[in-house]
Amino acid sequence: MADSTVIKIGICGLGVVGQGVWKHLQRNRKLLESRIGVKLDLTRAAVRSLDKSRSVKIPDNRLTDDVMSLATDPGLQIVCELMGGTDLARDFTLAALKAGKVVVSANKALICDHGREIFKAARTGGGHYFFEASVGGGIPIIKALREGLVANRFKLIYGVLNGTCNYILTRMEAEGLSFEELLKRARKLGYMEADESLDLDGIDTAHKAAVLGFLAHGRWVSMDEMLVEGIRRVTQEDIRQAAMLGYSIKLLAVITRDFETDRMFIGVHPALVPRSHVLANLTGAYNGICLSGDIVGTTFYIGRGAGQDATSSAVISDIADAALVIKGSHKLLLPDEAASVHEESSRPCGLLPLEEVHSLYYLRLTVKDEPGVLARVASVMAGNDVSIASVLQHELPLSKGASLILTTHQSNEKDVRNAVTELGELDSTIEEPFLMRIADFEE
Amino acid sequence: MADSTVIKIGICGLGVVGQGVWKHLQRNRKLLESRIGVKLDLTRAAVRSLDKSRSVKIPDNRLTDDVMSLATDPGLQIVCELMGGTDLARDFTLAALKAGKVVVSANKALICDHGREIFKAARTGGGHYFFEASVGGGIPIIKALREGLVANRFKLIYGVLNGTCNYILTRMEAEGLSFEELLKRARKLGYMEADESLDLDGIDTAHKAAVLGFLAHGRWVSMDEMLVEGIRRVTQEDIRQAAMLGYSIKLLAVITRDFETDRMFIGVHPALVPRSHVLANLTGAYNGICLSGDIVGTTFYIGRGAGQDATSSAVISDIADAALVIKGSHKLLLPDEAASVHEESSRPCGLLPLEEVHSLYYLRLTVKDEPGVLARVASVMAGNDVSIASVLQHELPLSKGASLILTTHQSNEKDVRNAVTELGELDSTIEEPFLMRIADFEE
Repeated sequence: MADSTVIKIGICGLGVVGQGVWKHLQRNRKLLESRIGVKLDLTRAAVRSLDKSRSVKIPDNRLTDDVMSLATDPGLQIVCELMGGTDLARDFTLAALKAGKVVVSANKALICDHGREIFKAARTGGGHYFFEASVGGGIPIIKALREGLVANRFKLIYGVLNGTCNYILTRMEAEGLSFEELLKRARKLGYMEADESLDLDGIDTAHKAAVLGFLAHGRWVSMDEMLVEGIRRVTQEDIRQAAMLGYSIKLLAVITRDFETDRMFIGVHPALVPRSHVLANLTGAYNGICLSGDIVGTTFYIGRGAGQDATSSAVISDIADAALVIKGSHKLLLPDEAASVHEESSRPCGLLPLEEVHSLYYLRLTVKDEPGVLARVASVMAGNDVSIASVLQHELPLSKGASLILTTHQSNEKDVRNAVTELGELDSTIEEPFLMRIADFEE
Repeated sequence: MADSTVIKIGICGLGVVGQGVWKHLQRNRKLLESRIGVKLDLTRAAVRSLDKSRSVKIPDNRLTDDVMSLATDPGLQIVCELMGGTDLARDFTLAALKAGKVVVSANKALICDHGREIFKAARTGGGHYFFEASVGGGIPIIKALREGLVANRFKLIYGVLNGTCNYILTRMEAEGLSFEELLKRARKLGYMEADESLDLDGIDTAHKAAVLGFLAHGRWVSMDEMLVEGIRRVTQEDIRQAAMLGYSIKLLAVITRDFETDRMFIGVHPALVPRSHVLANLTGAYNGICLSGDIVGTTFYIGRGAGQDATSSAVISDIADAALVIKGSHKLLLPDEAASVHEESSRPCGLLPLEEVHSLYYLRLTVKDEPGVLARVASVMAGNDVSIASVLQHELPLSKGASLILTTHQSNEKDVRNAVTELGELDSTIEEPFLMRIADFEE
């Protein structure tokens, strides 16, 4: 060994990910040490309950239920926060960074809610915060964004960032089953977060989009500054209609930046993606992300978005980077540190208001099957300056009225929403209209 | 600026890539500096001819035709070798590394032919060698392999690594044109290397595969230890037959490692890839690479594989990493440095002999259209233990005989080659049989 330094590591939280990190780090430790030239020691772990049975065996004298003791243990240089949640995890992270440690985390909710505070604590305490596992599971997307494409400005970033939603949508398309049936199956398979809303309402995806948006553009966009819609209203009929039009439905995160007006926008919503697009073919629990840079052009990154092994791979790569930092390296700055370096970039970039967002749209209406309905619908659309590209009308079974599927030409989000509100108020409308965006990413 | 260090950079070679690096580095310099916290100065450039007109304007006092003077200029910390070739480029690189500089390169042929010597010069001289742009153009694939997935052992790496071949094969499929017609067009578009054999015979792909194989497994595999076949014999009929069987034809590099017997194998050859596979949908000049790790599972990386902009993006990311190294960071070890760290890994991994390679195969025979031919062919296959999976026979126009397309079940490479040799010697065979592999990557 060129250098006999031994870096001591503590793991806080031995759930699915924590056990995976412990297991894989033990197994591939020698290989990893030879690759980075630093010796690693898995010194201690902390858990909330010592009594729980676990698949990895950890000697009693290396295990504690005093979580906070790891944060301040002077014997540890790297601590991994793998508990999840935003309360104890926050206290732990801030205490460890204050003590100058490197904290490795997979906790996107914590970063989103307390990122500013955490990065500030790292700066002032001399610690570092690594979070590759927070977005895209095992895909090294944060490294690609911050390092591999460091030369680029990012006009467009988009992707499928939630494996559970992708599983449900993919199986709806493949098996013709309803959303509810697949939700039940996803629960059985243990794919759902304890709070199902995180997956289904797009909140988990929004957390990840906020992290990518911050890294690319140096501004934290909060949930209420984004457009966030989930997949609960996607029906088997939508899947079929989209397929007939040549699309698959995916829950997308889209982060755009207009460099001329210096404004960014983050949207999370189900979208129709052309069947030939690489993201349309993402199956099951895979994530896929497109980073489009002004120099490199379009690049894609695909891999398992969650699960013990994929997440462990990302956490261990952060441990390796952390070990190199401790050995003396200087890491890239975070955007908010960078902003203080150059005065001209210290003005945070603005936000594009919804009024200025444009897209192609897909609209499903359930209407009474009576004469004149299509004329009224068309007139509402025209009255709001929304130009219809295609119409598909068919009778619903059991006399439940008719289904009207519209697609639009490039339209303004505000105009479309006004049209949708008006359409919802028509006497002939039976069910609240359902709106999706059609992804039309130029290459 | 947190640190007022200014890192001085020299660019050697102002061809397509050199001019791109100069241009993009000038344009995005402030952004880059704020991201890495280091100031960068594009100090000097060297070219072989001062008279040539170039799209980037460089003041005369910053331009020299004394290439070697950059290698030893004490004022420069980073030099980019963007000349190509393996003669002057080698002298330049060794001199610069001996002088303790960081050399950034996109020169895969140089790395392949002189990698050992170059890395040794870097170690002994205290320099560093960065080569992200040598594989996969703008895709940060070397960073993903060495850093993002540092926790993993790589059982399987494969990909489309030559954009020119991918352009020809993609357009053959899309337009129904012959190989020769598309080769002419690729020449017109300026897609071909000066030595066309580098592209068409798989040599460029083999260079890149050798680099990936070295980084993943610590062993340089030379061209004559690989299976290297190009795309010259792929016909429009192959494209059509493959499509009927549900495949696209791609020139693949495949790097496998069996950890039980500790042997690796590199093959470069046209292959039938299932239409639904992400690499089957790679169009034009895109590259796509799969890294399959024992922890992370399957990951994919896609982007432009060549061209001024994509390659510049990779070169500039290396410049950023180099600047951080100069500021004091410790980079990951190269595999041959790593081997000396752990005694048990210093034994280089072995090579899997061709006799032990197995695959599914596609075989096109052109035979006389006479009775008994199929029986003779089937008997040769059976006599060599090769089991036929499907047969497709059809008459060729203008009484040029018949075409016989066979696919096999999982078979041994040696057995299949013996069968092909025997088939080639049959009286009924009109043209040398054409063999391709069918890619059957388990996910």
